[in-house]
Amino acid sequence: MYLENIKGPADVKKLPMDALAVLANEMRTALLKKLSAHGGHFGPNLGFAEATIALHYVFNSPTDKIVYDVSHQTYCHKMLTGRKDAFLYPEKYDDVSGYSNPQESAHDFFTVGHTSTSVSLACGLAKARDLKGDTENIIAVIGDGSLSGGEALEGLDFASELQSNLIIVVNDNQMSIAENHGGLYRNLQLLRDTDGQAACNLFKSFGLDYVFVKDGNNLAELIPAFTSVKDSKHPVVVHICTQKGKGFAPAEQDKESWHWCMPFDPETGKSKVTFSGEDYSEITAEYLLKKMAVDKTVVAITSGTPAVLGFTEERRKQAGKQFVDVGIAEETAVALASGIAANGGKPVYGVYSTFLQRTFDQLSQDLCINNNPATILIYAASVYGMNDITHLGIYDIPMIANIPNLVYLAPTTKEEYLAMLEWSVEQQEHPVAIRVPGGEVISDGNAVDADYSRLNRFAVTENGSKTAILALGTFFPFGKRIAEKMKAETGVQPTLINPRFISGLDTDLLQELSTTHDTVITLEDGILDGGFGEKVARFYGNTRVRVLNYGYKKEFLDRYNAEDVLRENRLIPEQIAEDIISL
Amino acid sequence: MYLENIKGPADVKKLPMDALAVLANEMRTALLKKLSAHGGHFGPNLGFAEATIALHYVFNSPTDKIVYDVSHQTYCHKMLTGRKDAFLYPEKYDDVSGYSNPQESAHDFFTVGHTSTSVSLACGLAKARDLKGDTENIIAVIGDGSLSGGEALEGLDFASELQSNLIIVVNDNQMSIAENHGGLYRNLQLLRDTDGQAACNLFKSFGLDYVFVKDGNNLAELIPAFTSVKDSKHPVVVHICTQKGKGFAPAEQDKESWHWCMPFDPETGKSKVTFSGEDYSEITAEYLLKKMAVDKTVVAITSGTPAVLGFTEERRKQAGKQFVDVGIAEETAVALASGIAANGGKPVYGVYSTFLQRTFDQLSQDLCINNNPATILIYAASVYGMNDITHLGIYDIPMIANIPNLVYLAPTTKEEYLAMLEWSVEQQEHPVAIRVPGGEVISDGNAVDADYSRLNRFAVTENGSKTAILALGTFFPFGKRIAEKMKAETGVQPTLINPRFISGLDTDLLQELSTTHDTVITLEDGILDGGFGEKVARFYGNTRVRVLNYGYKKEFLDRYNAEDVLRENRLIPEQIAEDIISL
Repeated sequence: MYLENIKGPADVKKLPMDALAVLANEMRTALLKKLSAHGGHFGPNLGFAEATIALHYVFNSPTDKIVYDVSHQTYCHKMLTGRKDAFLYPEKYDDVSGYSNPQESAHDFFTVGHTSTSVSLACGLAKARDLKGDTENIIAVIGDGSLSGGEALEGLDFASELQSNLIIVVNDNQMSIAENHGGLYRNLQLLRDTDGQAACNLFKSFGLDYVFVKDGNNLAELIPAFTSVKDSKHPVVVHICTQKGKGFAPAEQDKESWHWCMPFDPETGKSKVTFSGEDYSEITAEYLLKKMAVDKTVVAITSGTPAVLGFTEERRKQAGKQFVDVGIAEETAVALASGIAANGGKPVYGVYSTFLQRTFDQLSQDLCINNNPATILIYAASVYGMNDITHLGIYDIPMIANIPNLVYLAPTTKEEYLAMLEWSVEQQEHPVAIRVPGGEVISDGNAVDADYSRLNRFAVTENGSKTAILALGTFFPFGKRIAEKMKAETGVQPTLINPRFISGLDTDLLQELSTTHDTVITLEDGILDGGFGEKVARFYGNTRVRVLNYGYKKEFLDRYNAEDVLRENRLIPEQIAEDIISL
Repeated sequence: MYLENIKGPADVKKLPMDALAVLANEMRTALLKKLSAHGGHFGPNLGFAEATIALHYVFNSPTDKIVYDVSHQTYCHKMLTGRKDAFLYPEKYDDVSGYSNPQESAHDFFTVGHTSTSVSLACGLAKARDLKGDTENIIAVIGDGSLSGGEALEGLDFASELQSNLIIVVNDNQMSIAENHGGLYRNLQLLRDTDGQAACNLFKSFGLDYVFVKDGNNLAELIPAFTSVKDSKHPVVVHICTQKGKGFAPAEQDKESWHWCMPFDPETGKSKVTFSGEDYSEITAEYLLKKMAVDKTVVAITSGTPAVLGFTEERRKQAGKQFVDVGIAEETAVALASGIAANGGKPVYGVYSTFLQRTFDQLSQDLCINNNPATILIYAASVYGMNDITHLGIYDIPMIANIPNLVYLAPTTKEEYLAMLEWSVEQQEHPVAIRVPGGEVISDGNAVDADYSRLNRFAVTENGSKTAILALGTFFPFGKRIAEKMKAETGVQPTLINPRFISGLDTDLLQELSTTHDTVITLEDGILDGGFGEKVARFYGNTRVRVLNYGYKKEFLDRYNAEDVLRENRLIPEQIAEDIISL
């Protein structure tokens, strides 16, 4: 096996051509073995084995610097840069992250997990090189799906201003996570159909040189192409056509399902993980499809991740024109929602908390200044969401709850979620965001007081004295447990409150509480800085009411265990009850 | 005079062709008269008179809907849609805002003041139209300078997905605020040089139809072009070439200076406003140019607004490769800065607070997760900054001070600003943002303890007892005045503290204060929600220390008077002293 002996790129360069092709297949075999046991980004990595070999064969990493977009195609790069063991030996599978990571290797230059950043980041490396008078090659790798993001398009436009070496490898596998959306994909199709000869060329229109590689899984085409642009004095795009999922038939056929995988049977492709119970994506899709059937102005929007809203291919067909995938283009998704609402439609945009960050200005300017009644559903906004440093869902409260005019809601159960969603879709007064609860779906069958038009009214679910517990969204069950424990240990029933609103305080209720309570506790599934609890602390700043805020320390976490994070931040209900009783 | 009789678009449609040309000149005369007395966006409006007439002549506003990008070219539109008086009669000049505004007129669909949003917003109007089964024309107007922004490029890419009517008027006056930067501008040049015939066409590569208008100041060309695309069933770009500053010789010649104007003498073009004293843009430019001369890795970055950093055309020449204008592309500016820092350069990005919003995700992901030592200078982050609803500078503290790893500093004087800037540029540990003070430059000649590497150390500038005043950045002089007043009225000297750090607390000092003080006051030139003061309130939540936070209510303000805003939020030092004394 060649791969076992690859300690770094120098070992790749020594191999004869026929051995390189064998190496590519060994890498795919390792991917299949690891990912079928471990899960991870599957299709994009399988397709990029030959290109990774060719890059390391032609260029001199880490002096020459390769920046990978979104990191969905970095696994082969990791194998060839001293990290093969993490792909060969099960006990070492967790030694590397799923993303490029400078702390792992000198061959990685940025921790990257959001799309569309590689060209602009690489422009920075190139600019510094030029200022210092160095001469290395700077290479940005970007997938076709990432091209539609604003930062990527800005970067392509800016790159030619450098007037120096920058090599942009466009890995065109004709797919985003789902199918691509946007006019530029028709241009890529035209370029593929004409072997790159079409005069109308997106990349050339941005002032970039252009090289086409018809078979991006063929080393005999890739190596000469990369060699031809090495040490180029101008920014140049190398457009390579690869096969997503190459070498694993189910992934070649169903590219969307195999973009990313949970552990599966490598013989059949069948997932080893089965979910039981409900999830909020399914609940949302079912709600929206019903709603769409009776109201043609209801429209669901995704930015390249239709699964967030539970819209499988079949459901997308069912929704027809009432489902819009803007591609990876979060800014346009929010602007589109605002425009639809301004013209009498009822838009619902579903997005992960971490990707909502990409559209702060559109939330503020396009949507909230204009006060248009769009609905934004925010998923994985919880410690129980994704746990990679680049995909955390614990920062959205400070980010958006402080934007004027936005009503940010925190449901605690399925019933409450659906009531809030229905209210939001039908009301015409406010832009509304809903923080979809993390963890398991809780359904208590209780009827919900759904008049959310009276903004910032908290719901008292248990009347008590001395201590009031404001337990937001996902953490409401924690509040319940704390209250029960305190009652059991002290005999005094604390007041339990479901705040429902993240973006404002129920000042009448808080005022009232201060006459009968001496301690107020806040719980939120997010960082404390800039969050909900601090608003409560400010409200009571000039009173004798004690306020204890529970949430996370402001820091970037990585590959964490949720229980550990909760414990370290003293967020386990027993810890909190202990704190309060000790007061 | 025709203009006096234009009550709405219907009156435009009635005029014969020769009268329309006269009307255009009347509109320019009105612009010259109003703006020379009042100030405003000058060059872009002068160049767009004929196109505005042609749009209203051909289309049927407000049924057909025109969305203007950034609103720099809306003044003529306002004149033709019932708001002429605000351009003809000095006593009515302030009846309209400088931006498109649905509260003023049914012919405006969004309040817009940031660039690059019109195409995506218009896509939303078009999508709602299609869902409802309506058939009106939707028109987006966008200037060439705005095309480089990520949201605009996303919108151009997405538009063709609509497969229905959308007309995108690209107003190409060959200028952004300063000169354009980016490869796409060479494509626009090619299109101008070939009368739109070049096969390599940015817009076509996004899947859009394309029409070229050589003289966009000629009604005889514009009207047929717009007529030809009216009721088009596909998205189509109408690329019109106009003259920025048309009709006023100084503005035709020096387009950058005349993009926006203060009141001036209409005979000579000489500004009527003279600034005396220093300003932070000048101070910064002088510092950076000196630094660049001795360190070739220092590089200043702007995203289309070089004046922010004080970089006039002459200084840009002097800086050479050490000054980079990425064009209107804030996302790329931050990614570029991160990349430069990652490869050993010393980047300094200068940006207005309001436009920093456009790059939240790049701050978080590209910069702060990677902890690269870039410097970001944030201007107009103050009630004394710009006062239009779309350009406010009072939201940046909640936005960025809660991003992990970012060190956000608040200098109070010129000396402290320069010390912080020098420290930031030379250190290698942290991404740093500096909140450039608002209002007049204060220079006290005092030496500054500049060891900012010990993060979150507040500076006690006056030792006292009972009350401690934490007065952040621009509001430090307020703190001083409050302390003086309290000393005078009560005989007790309060402690006065310059926090210096916005993004973290000096917990040792706060702990110490609690033993000798019963009241802590915080002052910040920003909204209270998610801000600095709330962190202090949280810190003291479980103590007997009273905390009073002073800052602004979370709301969108518009065209305010700073003193009024301060008074309404009880931020006048005398009001605060009164509050404290009354406790």
